[in-house]
Amino acid sequence: MKAQSRRDGDPEFLSTLERGLSVLRAFDQTRPEMQLSEVAAVTGLNPAVVRRCLNTLVKLGYVAQHGRRFLLRPEVLVFGSAYLASMNLEEVAAPALQTVRDSTGDSASLAVLSGDDVLYLLHVSTNRTIRLRAGVGTRFPIYATSLGRILLAYRDDEAIEDYLSRAKLERLTEHTITSAATLRKMLKTARKDGYASAQDELDYGIVSVSVPVMASGDQVAAAINCSTSTTRVSREELIETRLPELRAAARKIGDALDRWPFLLHSLKQV
Amino acid sequence: MKAQSRRDGDPEFLSTLERGLSVLRAFDQTRPEMQLSEVAAVTGLNPAVVRRCLNTLVKLGYVAQHGRRFLLRPEVLVFGSAYLASMNLEEVAAPALQTVRDSTGDSASLAVLSGDDVLYLLHVSTNRTIRLRAGVGTRFPIYATSLGRILLAYRDDEAIEDYLSRAKLERLTEHTITSAATLRKMLKTARKDGYASAQDELDYGIVSVSVPVMASGDQVAAAINCSTSTTRVSREELIETRLPELRAAARKIGDALDRWPFLLHSLKQV
Repeated sequence: MKAQSRRDGDPEFLSTLERGLSVLRAFDQTRPEMQLSEVAAVTGLNPAVVRRCLNTLVKLGYVAQHGRRFLLRPEVLVFGSAYLASMNLEEVAAPALQTVRDSTGDSASLAVLSGDDVLYLLHVSTNRTIRLRAGVGTRFPIYATSLGRILLAYRDDEAIEDYLSRAKLERLTEHTITSAATLRKMLKTARKDGYASAQDELDYGIVSVSVPVMASGDQVAAAINCSTSTTRVSREELIETRLPELRAAARKIGDALDRWPFLLHSLKQV
Repeated sequence: MKAQSRRDGDPEFLSTLERGLSVLRAFDQTRPEMQLSEVAAVTGLNPAVVRRCLNTLVKLGYVAQHGRRFLLRPEVLVFGSAYLASMNLEEVAAPALQTVRDSTGDSASLAVLSGDDVLYLLHVSTNRTIRLRAGVGTRFPIYATSLGRILLAYRDDEAIEDYLSRAKLERLTEHTITSAATLRKMLKTARKDGYASAQDELDYGIVSVSVPVMASGDQVAAAINCSTSTTRVSREELIETRLPELRAAARKIGDALDRWPFLLHSLKQV
């Protein structure tokens, strides 16, 4: 998460804003509370810069200071809430996902790419005990999820190679794909087949299958998946029985997105 | 929402960061898409400054540009998600709220102040059709809600007078309190009684009662409420029958907060 100005010398690019946002992003589940020096280490920024960023964020109410330690305040919810309230994603996509959930008994989600992660924007869950803890805003690494792989598969070769050369493919379970070459092949197959699947890769006991949501003709706006426990269904059976349902849902959501250009533009990959 | 540097001349305060964040906050449900000139009008910032902020936010992936119009991207969810994932608010407070919901049949919420709004951090809903659309991140004006009034009631006189002189008390229904003098009296009563109630003020058909959540002795960390339809129960009956339950839940949450100093510090009023 090294922060460095992406637009050196561009007078229209505000490095101070980039740095401030990278300080805000440095806090997460593994680092809920940090001292200034830890924030500097995580962001790669000069401690004097970090001090000014933290000082400003504390004064604006986004960060709390407790002694020498800093942590996020609930005020940071404002940005995501404004997005969710202003885009009618739930209206547009939830009915189709609920249909998938009700007819398959699996949970269903819609996600987009966000950096090297897949970012969940909608999740329709079942009442089963064994299920993935995923909700709006949840992030998982691209390489270990079927949603991530199908989204990456439809990007151009440069973006794919960029990702493969950059991503740290960590062994999350003994089944996680940690070879860039294997992943490259899987992405090609996913693109050809129009779906991706994953089993026991992000965590044990979870199997999923994902398809792209196409809008404006052939543009991939998002991906949706079914996910369930490996004790309920095998990967082969999941693919065979869920794909038609999932593809019908993706078409419905894609058609709805075509009627909501705001929402579609907000989802567009950058 | 006029943005002006709160710390003029403070070399440790980064006005550029403040301006960039105010541009990001300018987007909401009523203004999901804006041109540069509209963002300038909403934030009170110079158009050249707004242009650089938008340009930077587009390059960082937080804002999408479509022709001359700008809108938020799902990437903005990252900040709130990090907060929710790093604080165990749900573990700490949801069980007590669920008990309230199950025993009363009302929905129950936990909220804090955020500027001139009350900000919902947890919401445990019922399956009733007539209910308030509130979820994590929902904001309502302080003056028209029992949660807002009980939270404001426990602030010091200066903060209360500040709010009363600043807030635009809009008539949301014919029962909304729009007089600062009346509101001042209600706040005094709420502080004395230890609860606030509201009916048909934010919208017709909703009645609610709220109590403070005290932690670290007498510090107000948050507020919780019960809310239901006016067709189910009168305001007097709601107060009489729900207060004991609500106060017990507030004590439980307050005790739990004392065991989670991170979370407590993040909720602390600034």
